[in-house]
Amino acid sequence: MCPSAAAAAANDTITVPTTEGAVPPEFQAVDSSAATKNGAAAANPQQRNPYASRASDFLSNTSNWKIIESTLREGEQFANAFFDTETKMKIAQALSDFGVEYLEITSPAASEQSYEDCKRICQMGLKSKILTHIRCHMDDARKAVETGVDGVDIVIGTSSFLRKYSHGKDITYIIKSAIEVIEFVKSKGIEVRFSSEDSFRSDLVDLLSIYRAVDKVGVNRVGIADTVGCANPRQVYDLVRTLRGVVSCDIECHFHDDSGCAVANAFCALEAGATHIDTSVLGIGERNGITTLGGLIARMYVVDPEYVKGKYNLAMLREVENLVADAVQVSVPFNNPITGFCAFTHKAGIHAKAILANPSTYEILKPEDFGMSRYIDIGSRLTGWNAVKSRVEQLELDMTDEQVKDVTMKIKELADVRTQSMDDVDTVLRVYHKHVTSGKLGLRQPAVFDQLLAEHKSEAGSEKGDDEPAAKKAKLA
Amino acid sequence: MCPSAAAAAANDTITVPTTEGAVPPEFQAVDSSAATKNGAAAANPQQRNPYASRASDFLSNTSNWKIIESTLREGEQFANAFFDTETKMKIAQALSDFGVEYLEITSPAASEQSYEDCKRICQMGLKSKILTHIRCHMDDARKAVETGVDGVDIVIGTSSFLRKYSHGKDITYIIKSAIEVIEFVKSKGIEVRFSSEDSFRSDLVDLLSIYRAVDKVGVNRVGIADTVGCANPRQVYDLVRTLRGVVSCDIECHFHDDSGCAVANAFCALEAGATHIDTSVLGIGERNGITTLGGLIARMYVVDPEYVKGKYNLAMLREVENLVADAVQVSVPFNNPITGFCAFTHKAGIHAKAILANPSTYEILKPEDFGMSRYIDIGSRLTGWNAVKSRVEQLELDMTDEQVKDVTMKIKELADVRTQSMDDVDTVLRVYHKHVTSGKLGLRQPAVFDQLLAEHKSEAGSEKGDDEPAAKKAKLA
Repeated sequence: MCPSAAAAAANDTITVPTTEGAVPPEFQAVDSSAATKNGAAAANPQQRNPYASRASDFLSNTSNWKIIESTLREGEQFANAFFDTETKMKIAQALSDFGVEYLEITSPAASEQSYEDCKRICQMGLKSKILTHIRCHMDDARKAVETGVDGVDIVIGTSSFLRKYSHGKDITYIIKSAIEVIEFVKSKGIEVRFSSEDSFRSDLVDLLSIYRAVDKVGVNRVGIADTVGCANPRQVYDLVRTLRGVVSCDIECHFHDDSGCAVANAFCALEAGATHIDTSVLGIGERNGITTLGGLIARMYVVDPEYVKGKYNLAMLREVENLVADAVQVSVPFNNPITGFCAFTHKAGIHAKAILANPSTYEILKPEDFGMSRYIDIGSRLTGWNAVKSRVEQLELDMTDEQVKDVTMKIKELADVRTQSMDDVDTVLRVYHKHVTSGKLGLRQPAVFDQLLAEHKSEAGSEKGDDEPAAKKAKLA
Repeated sequence: MCPSAAAAAANDTITVPTTEGAVPPEFQAVDSSAATKNGAAAANPQQRNPYASRASDFLSNTSNWKIIESTLREGEQFANAFFDTETKMKIAQALSDFGVEYLEITSPAASEQSYEDCKRICQMGLKSKILTHIRCHMDDARKAVETGVDGVDIVIGTSSFLRKYSHGKDITYIIKSAIEVIEFVKSKGIEVRFSSEDSFRSDLVDLLSIYRAVDKVGVNRVGIADTVGCANPRQVYDLVRTLRGVVSCDIECHFHDDSGCAVANAFCALEAGATHIDTSVLGIGERNGITTLGGLIARMYVVDPEYVKGKYNLAMLREVENLVADAVQVSVPFNNPITGFCAFTHKAGIHAKAILANPSTYEILKPEDFGMSRYIDIGSRLTGWNAVKSRVEQLELDMTDEQVKDVTMKIKELADVRTQSMDDVDTVLRVYHKHVTSGKLGLRQPAVFDQLLAEHKSEAGSEKGDDEPAAKKAKLA
């Protein structure tokens, strides 16, 4: 067995060598400026990446955005999270190495240790800028600026719900106290963001009045937060687009995932002109959390792979996720985008066949860009003869298409009883090839083949009893 | 300790009794027709559910849609899936009891056992209609109709990628063979759907030509499939809205989740006039799968809770998910909407305080509708005095607000070292209350309190040595 086949067998799947040109050039991202420069692309719009932003999306920031990574703030609100200082520093270092533009840290007003930890992370000299997230109070703001952060994120509830059941303040009061805190933070020469909470249940006029007022006093960013996790993509697009016309500062967005839209909402916010997205690793946060770092990366890579690859160390994603998963004692979800254990596994016959011919047919994320591998499972009842043929060629067996179709029927029959490993499939293919070549076996003689396969297995079994490694070697030779 | 407090302590969290009126009437779903009938709601649009569809969304089907549950088809393409007949029947029964309108089953052409299983499920007499999913071939169609299904779902790749690397057929050939298969299935008196594959990378004119042609010959549904999982919400809205103007039949949509948008895309498809959404339990399918059944339920519940509660047995969701998770040997993701272990856990002080005053502040899904419970964690460094005050009241301790704020500082200090369980918090509260009442302890005397707490613990410890249950009982009395 050749080395690559051996490696594949260990995974019970075929590893397809990844090639540079897996995504054909006509499907590479083309942004509107490139389309203008590139006559060919402009002349044939059908050949553009259909997932890239369109020239008509003049507000779109899908190729110009930043991450505010909140694992050390929102993530600390996750049910299982208790980060000691060392863990916080490890996570901060990993995220900075990954390349996120900002790290958001728990308020130094939360507890004595939170204050110390915030200071400590500021002293690490990370590439990422450090922000802390505080209530709209002067006491909190004074503590925040003492820690040495690069910026302060201020938040206050603006919905009728939160105004009634949380802080009980009216809009005039909110604006007045926001301006006091903003001017204080600005006087210290650092960044300041003002965010509403539960923005999608806030009165639109109240909300825009507050944002305009804080924009006028020179806030660096305003924030929209879907605190209850129920906003939907077109609603997000509309609100951000409206806000884009009201303020001149940057726009940050924060989305909870209670109804499964946190990644999509972040994307639509960027399409409407938002500039910063809050994420956490695996989405950890209050309840079932927020936009996941990995999900946002997958989404944005689809639109503009070169931009995403240029900004972030994508091969580190899995390491960062494993670090945080360990720290909060959860497993990486099996269906996680990019790093889920089967994110690049192909099984159905028609998928396997097309992927073997050209990986772009069923894959628009290139696994090698994330340090991942592609696998094709050909031992299930859903397999197809083209997928089997590719394996026959890898094993350098000389068979006609008719013979491959015939042996595929046999693999499906065996897989109806139990899924066949790559080893099982290889044995079937070798035994079939040996006897069809010697003339012992003809086409469509399943009973004869069953007999030959049983004989082979009993021989291999008795050899195995004597000297297992040698027998195995012989069987696979 | 009262029974409810004991139950809460077992979970290290406060269980908040759920009330009928958790979502105030002004935030209940109001659809456009109700708004017309209901003068008050129409006169005060700010008081409508902001997540409900708007009167201007005349295409929206967000209160009129059906599920095509594909765990037994798409789900069988999941890397870990091998369903024997018994498992398939259990899953089919559970999904039918849950209330999904359709079940989609693996093609009977996939293998001999697939054929037998399809027949068997059709004979179960389920409430859900049974569909099977086949390639656009007469051979497959003949096998499908033999099994006794209520309908046949036909699929063929229409993108230039799939036409080149998969089947190699042109559009004229696709239309011709589709019509032949559709007319054959219709002649048997059962439903038929025609779907393209990789619809978002197909040429729009080709796609619409095919759909119009099959609509004219009386197909029941056309299907759009984001086979590579990279479509985005506004793109989906645009394509479905365009298609809605071209065909008069129903529109089904199928979304993969490679870039984290499968639930959001399904929602936008319904907003644009789609009628049927494909789901699988936990989203299992090729690669990292498709729209999750639970995610879609969460999303649609937000828009119109009464409609969703009327159609589906929501309290069964967790059972159905556990059944499938066991069958494919995965864990339910920690961050799963609705059933993730922390989907209704609140931790930050400001969240806990507001949730205690009114659950709608940070929750728009009512946990009791899904047979779930709400938990509030007050033993972390992120806790707040209002959350602690609620626990003080549950324990019937008589303390002033100043005293509650003082003891909250102590809880934060302890939680900086390690997260405090509900038992720990209760002990702190009882010891504090006892000594502050007796006059031994004043406000802001942390050192004195540390001493008193240490004494209490050593007493409790020595009692515990003698007779643990009795000691515990005494401590909690």
